[in-house]
Amino acid sequence: MISRSLRYDAANMREDRVGKYGVKDSEWKEMLPRLRSAKSALQKLSRKNEQGFLNLPFERALHQESIKTSERVTSLFTDMVVLGIGGSDLGARALNQALPESQKKKGALKLHFAGSSTDPDELSSLLASLNLKKTCVNVISKSGGTLETMSSFLVFRDLLQKRIGKKKFNRHIVATTDPESGVLRELAKKEAYATLPIPTNVGGRWSVLSPVGIFPAAVSGVDTDMLLASARRCVDRFHELTVGECDCTQYAGLHAIGMGKRKQNIHVLMPYAKRLSEFAKWVRQLTAESLGKKTNRKGKTVFTGPTPVASIGPEDQHSQLQLYSEGPFDKLITFINVKNFSSDIRTPVSGNLDPGMKRFENKSFSKLIHIEQKATADSLKQLNRPNGTIEISSIDERSLGELFMFFEIAIALMGELLDVNAYNQPGVELSKKLMEKSLS
Amino acid sequence: MISRSLRYDAANMREDRVGKYGVKDSEWKEMLPRLRSAKSALQKLSRKNEQGFLNLPFERALHQESIKTSERVTSLFTDMVVLGIGGSDLGARALNQALPESQKKKGALKLHFAGSSTDPDELSSLLASLNLKKTCVNVISKSGGTLETMSSFLVFRDLLQKRIGKKKFNRHIVATTDPESGVLRELAKKEAYATLPIPTNVGGRWSVLSPVGIFPAAVSGVDTDMLLASARRCVDRFHELTVGECDCTQYAGLHAIGMGKRKQNIHVLMPYAKRLSEFAKWVRQLTAESLGKKTNRKGKTVFTGPTPVASIGPEDQHSQLQLYSEGPFDKLITFINVKNFSSDIRTPVSGNLDPGMKRFENKSFSKLIHIEQKATADSLKQLNRPNGTIEISSIDERSLGELFMFFEIAIALMGELLDVNAYNQPGVELSKKLMEKSLS
Repeated sequence: MISRSLRYDAANMREDRVGKYGVKDSEWKEMLPRLRSAKSALQKLSRKNEQGFLNLPFERALHQESIKTSERVTSLFTDMVVLGIGGSDLGARALNQALPESQKKKGALKLHFAGSSTDPDELSSLLASLNLKKTCVNVISKSGGTLETMSSFLVFRDLLQKRIGKKKFNRHIVATTDPESGVLRELAKKEAYATLPIPTNVGGRWSVLSPVGIFPAAVSGVDTDMLLASARRCVDRFHELTVGECDCTQYAGLHAIGMGKRKQNIHVLMPYAKRLSEFAKWVRQLTAESLGKKTNRKGKTVFTGPTPVASIGPEDQHSQLQLYSEGPFDKLITFINVKNFSSDIRTPVSGNLDPGMKRFENKSFSKLIHIEQKATADSLKQLNRPNGTIEISSIDERSLGELFMFFEIAIALMGELLDVNAYNQPGVELSKKLMEKSLS
Repeated sequence: MISRSLRYDAANMREDRVGKYGVKDSEWKEMLPRLRSAKSALQKLSRKNEQGFLNLPFERALHQESIKTSERVTSLFTDMVVLGIGGSDLGARALNQALPESQKKKGALKLHFAGSSTDPDELSSLLASLNLKKTCVNVISKSGGTLETMSSFLVFRDLLQKRIGKKKFNRHIVATTDPESGVLRELAKKEAYATLPIPTNVGGRWSVLSPVGIFPAAVSGVDTDMLLASARRCVDRFHELTVGECDCTQYAGLHAIGMGKRKQNIHVLMPYAKRLSEFAKWVRQLTAESLGKKTNRKGKTVFTGPTPVASIGPEDQHSQLQLYSEGPFDKLITFINVKNFSSDIRTPVSGNLDPGMKRFENKSFSKLIHIEQKATADSLKQLNRPNGTIEISSIDERSLGELFMFFEIAIALMGELLDVNAYNQPGVELSKKLMEKSLS
């Protein structure tokens, strides 16, 4: 079995560290049976196949489809444009940013993300830079009805038809969509695109370990076997450990308690690594869409949901730390600390510097960033501001597999604890309706 | 006088549009005298030169220094690395992202931002890509004591000494720092760097229209004359209009009312243009550091401050809109809508598409993004979620000058209304102290 990369240290979330803003032992004791019920409920959803995300890392046949298609695509092209929005591209974006080219397999494709906007300036500048003969387009939409993605896709489809010809343009397209229904599935059949399925019991924001995320990852040279093995390890731990031992269960319980009478309703995720800023955005979507709900499962109006904030260290020490240190006690902060960076830099030693400057000499950057993260966590603790730290050994497929699964399980459990349906998004229907009206 | 680019429409912030979550007429009437006092207080701070930001756009001699230095630098180099963090680089980053090369003067330098992190992976990959012989380094730190900036600077200084030689390396450096004191000023004197001053009465987050932002902007080909003229126009309006007429005053008053008994403490800024995502981060810093305060000016403990959120449309419709539509009523949302984009794309017309796909045909992207922004604002209004829209005619120097000044004035006024010192950041001292301890 592969070793773990992730450790979650939640000591600074507790009353003995941060006083009355922290979780009391009695609250934690009361939470344990609730967490056990939440865990059972989630296991049941998964066992009955009502929700598929927990099973995804184990679906070898499904991943094999992604790998096979990725091998064909990699042999033919140099670039791939991913057209998706929200849950259809945030996971692939996170992976692509976290794992730089130097860490990936050689000969892989360069990814471009273009389906998440109707900003004309954005798409124009991408189009100007691409050689379409060497470019594959991966269009991702479960229904095929997504305005931003499908508008961009129609532009690419048209350009491909013109440059490649009406007979062969379809070889440049891979459609990731519902296995059976929807307008994109129809079009893919009619025009004979390669396709990959999005399992019907997996919603967009839970789909990173389906072909939605795995195919672009494989195309760009990510070791998807390791990613999935590591995710499986996290799921196994969730099933096997007690709710008091398992770290994603702890995260869910502590955050749900904070949302109670202390109303700690702003949940900050602050990785100390630029390469994880897109990952923080993925967590932000997962949290907001899953937990931001008007009604609970009993139909009672609750208007609930924490506001997730994606922050970044050390940059935001010079932007948000003042507020986190002195503002209202409405926040719970989680750091991600990277133990080993893939490179390091040491500040030089020079003979002639003044003491004020000399103290920065002969320091390794990785040591500096660790000192900064620890000083921030310690100072927040001293100011009675609850915070936790996720430590990963390095940014790689192993840690990312765990990170994705850690947050999927934690947010799903929080959905159970808040008693909301974490898998729908009824709130965006009204704006969609108004948009459709203007469109026609 | 130049015409205005910016309009602020706050109708959806009012009770007649969004019911009890909006501002009542009576509340607005009570706010007006408070706004008048806040305005006077800010004018006094500025007249007595205690705070310099309102006067910055009028300081021609100061800007002339930036322009002169930028002309020398532009003639010698192809790239410039900006080393700053927080207030020392967020403004320049915002300008650089908002104005793409095609909109700038020809022959200008390409900017790289590298002082805002001690992430070793980040700096390593930049160093690998630069030709130092053609590169200038602009190090920005008021005191010279900023860990991230100065560590990065020592690395660049050392590399320049090695590649260019100890005699001439200083020609590659421009130090933007306190006019008199501090370790960076000392080093600049000793090693004869070109320097630019940060006025003593201007703090980091208020400094974008000082050499901190103007010099990198000029080097990268931004029309700084237009930027400053537009900012002056905004300041003039603030002085000349009544507090009920002036839009930045309105923004401050409406947000301060929301923070009152309705506790609308999360302030979202959501531009519908990717090129403004860094600008939203600049506003996020300005808001958090200025207003997130433990004590008010009378010394009373208040633990106040809104949590600013930088969002982006239409992307975040598929990430945050569910929460904004159905979550707690703790948010005030401001959109930025761009009337004219610099380019446009039209989806093609194809004979053979199904109706589900056909509705996306023959649509211009700029029209689609406007439809989306309006549908989002309208649906939030129908769901009783207060929101305002800033419309700018296009993303250019004219609108950016107004945007920077709009938010600087609005946040300064909110500081007066909350009765906090918007110009200090005492809350980060503890983490600095802990960091220094670990460093030595």
